[in-house]
Amino acid sequence: MTNAPTNHASAEATYPKDKIPAIRRLMMPRDTNALGTIFGGVILSEIDLAAAIEAHRWHPSKVVTVSMDKVEFKQPVFTGDLVSFFTETKRVGRSSITVHVSVWAERRFGGGSAVHVTEADVTMVAVDDNFKPTPVLRPNGPSAS
Amino acid sequence: MTNAPTNHASAEATYPKDKIPAIRRLMMPRDTNALGTIFGGVILSEIDLAAAIEAHRWHPSKVVTVSMDKVEFKQPVFTGDLVSFFTETKRVGRSSITVHVSVWAERRFGGGSAVHVTEADVTMVAVDDNFKPTPVLRPNGPSAS
Amino acid sequence: MTNAPTNHASAEATYPKDKIPAIRRLMMPRDTNALGTIFGGVILSEIDLAAAIEAHRWHPSKVVTVSMDKVEFKQPVFTGDLVSFFTETKRVGRSSITVHVSVWAERRFGGGSAVHVTEADVTMVAVDDNFKPTPVLRPNGPSAS
Amino acid sequence: MTNAPTNHASAEATYPKDKIPAIRRLMMPRDTNALGTIFGGVILSEIDLAAAIEAHRWHPSKVVTVSMDKVEFKQPVFTGDLVSFFTETKRVGRSSITVHVSVWAERRFGGGSAVHVTEADVTMVAVDDNFKPTPVLRPNGPSAS
Amino acid sequence: MTNAPTNHASAEATYPKDKIPAIRRLMMPRDTNALGTIFGGVILSEIDLAAAIEAHRWHPSKVVTVSMDKVEFKQPVFTGDLVSFFTETKRVGRSSITVHVSVWAERRFGGGSAVHVTEADVTMVAVDDNFKPTPVLRPNGPSAS
Amino acid sequence: MTNAPTNHASAEATYPKDKIPAIRRLMMPRDTNALGTIFGGVILSEIDLAAAIEAHRWHPSKVVTVSMDKVEFKQPVFTGDLVSFFTETKRVGRSSITVHVSVWAERRFGGGSAVHVTEADVTMVAVDDNFKPTPVLRPNGPSAS
Repeated sequence: MTNAPTNHASAEATYPKDKIPAIRRLMMPRDTNALGTIFGGVILSEIDLAAAIEAHRWHPSKVVTVSMDKVEFKQPVFTGDLVSFFTETKRVGRSSITVHVSVWAERRFGGGSAVHVTEADVTMVAVDDNFKPTPVLRPNGPSAS
Repeated sequence: MTNAPTNHASAEATYPKDKIPAIRRLMMPRDTNALGTIFGGVILSEIDLAAAIEAHRWHPSKVVTVSMDKVEFKQPVFTGDLVSFFTETKRVGRSSITVHVSVWAERRFGGGSAVHVTEADVTMVAVDDNFKPTPVLRPNGPSAS
Repeated sequence: MTNAPTNHASAEATYPKDKIPAIRRLMMPRDTNALGTIFGGVILSEIDLAAAIEAHRWHPSKVVTVSMDKVEFKQPVFTGDLVSFFTETKRVGRSSITVHVSVWAERRFGGGSAVHVTEADVTMVAVDDNFKPTPVLRPNGPSAS
Repeated sequence: MTNAPTNHASAEATYPKDKIPAIRRLMMPRDTNALGTIFGGVILSEIDLAAAIEAHRWHPSKVVTVSMDKVEFKQPVFTGDLVSFFTETKRVGRSSITVHVSVWAERRFGGGSAVHVTEADVTMVAVDDNFKPTPVLRPNGPSAS
Repeated sequence: MTNAPTNHASAEATYPKDKIPAIRRLMMPRDTNALGTIFGGVILSEIDLAAAIEAHRWHPSKVVTVSMDKVEFKQPVFTGDLVSFFTETKRVGRSSITVHVSVWAERRFGGGSAVHVTEADVTMVAVDDNFKPTPVLRPNGPSAS
Repeated sequence: MTNAPTNHASAEATYPKDKIPAIRRLMMPRDTNALGTIFGGVILSEIDLAAAIEAHRWHPSKVVTVSMDKVEFKQPVFTGDLVSFFTETKRVGRSSITVHVSVWAERRFGGGSAVHVTEADVTMVAVDDNFKPTPVLRPNGPSAS
């Protein structure tokens, strides 16, 4: 359970309060696990969706998740926490888009302190109707990488 | 209760892309109604939560919803839409906080066009542990109204 | 949080135990909010569905919600409450149907006291397959308004 | 798959439109199974709750389900069906209450035809805080059986 | 609430730890009823699905549930229980397949003791695209009954 | 974190049909994403729970997830698939337990072909009531590592 600080983690020591989140949700009792804290699966699910949202800025059509890099859970999340998923494109290849997702929880409906929950790199691939890789469209998207 | 455009409505003719949403969620198949579009109850539910989040900036403790003003649904919402709930405090009284919530949907995971779905004024009241009204705390909150 | 009695409210001072509800549901733990009471969004969702059910008596085809008038929450709802949504048609126009929905909670699976939770006027519009307004069918429906 | 008519079934050949349901719900897409019809588990779940509601009229405190007699599914249920669960007390013993639950679906939000879906006899037992059987309270309940 | 031992029940006095379950799920807070134990509807729902899974071994196409024999709940189920649904084909007819489902709960994520919750006989029928009975396919299925 | 095939991966080229899964669930329409396939978050959620179940064999008390190693999604999952999560303890430390989870989908309620969906290494930590690391209990658990 050593959560050795990485470069990334240090960079994220402060809550990015001026950044616009890809997803932001209030945690409800139905999101809890048997210990009463928020179920990790709820957080992993939204990380996956947040990455898909960021990928759509580059490819506003079908994308699928191909991988999620190692995820470390640094802090528990509680009912009533406002959880934000911030995204950043790390790399855009011919068919793939890698997105960094950083997760922060603000206690008490966002009225309490902010803690860094976890972060992950998710790789999405642009696909056609038969789920075969297809080139990323890059329509007036974010500035090219 | 006329549907005549108000100043507020006109001010929202453009998607506030630089504003930070109180809540932002991707709509999933489990959120649909029998017609295949997103169930209005899902939108109303998040409006209620978004107002509670804004109210917590003024009163980081227990608040309850006492009323929601007239809501008009201007545009349908679809599976795959990224829906943002923007909030603005309209009035802070002794125990009550009135929050304006504006709802926008961005088609295709946020990669498509943005449409204004609805808006509402929700009034929350700060309450004690017995659910009796109590003064709003106003801790280093947003600038007073 | 003054809930000044309105004409409607007075008329509803007594639980309409002989009236057939459009919707009636038992509240479960998964319907709670972070305070442990039933989430307002659950009630708003069922109000929307109850209005659609009443509207179908006049137009047994596609209808969409266009507005919900001001809603005041008078009483909290708890897990184990049996909640009934009673409907009454207020007005049938060329394409629109306005439905009054009154919400009552009976504590302890319906075995306890009944309290008036809220009420709302919801306007639905009959639409064709392209979601354009179409005349209300009025098939041997309730007696004309 | 013969559904030989029983006395009960004949008695229920007509939709009891003047009877007040214990539960009435609109079926949504999230209630479907892999075939696209409503998942049988959704119906069984509400039968269980409807029986608990009827039992609370006799014992407005803790009750648990001990058995559900044979259930036959006569008709499929679809998204958009308004499904009503009607209850009738069959027998009240010292600690147990047996409830008959009859399930009807009205197509198209209740605007279409009504079909008899299934019926079941559910036995509930009044229990104390340690889940041990306790006498049925019978507070000014329905007329004794 | 007499749970008189039946031949079947005696045969199941011991948890079948070497048997492969058709379904196995961890119970979560969102599965609870108003008493805080797991909602019976959750168990009934999975019994229905477990039977469908067993039936697909005989007919890997469309099947529907036509009946569920009497179900007795012998033990409560709690949040954190690992619940297993074991199936056994009892009879394969021309179009119907009867499946015995036995339900066991292992306390504390499976790390605690195992208790027998309930058992049921479910009859499924193979149907064509119009939901009409069709012969069971019996593709290299389990050894014929 | 190279994707080079490991011994583990090769060992999993064949569906382990004689192995007892930690979790096995049938995928339903409510588990789908906007593309109509099963939402990755549903799979990630069950991987997390499956690891917790395996960890409880070593520590039948409170455990929390601290990390999930890289996950690659090899095959899509569809509604009606029977998905099994097989677990294997990789390492038991003083307070931590690392579990390998392998995910297989059997098409058509388990009546169709089996495909390997993904696999992951999840590390859990035994914690006390204050969520501080505590030694793994190792009660007559699986044979020591």
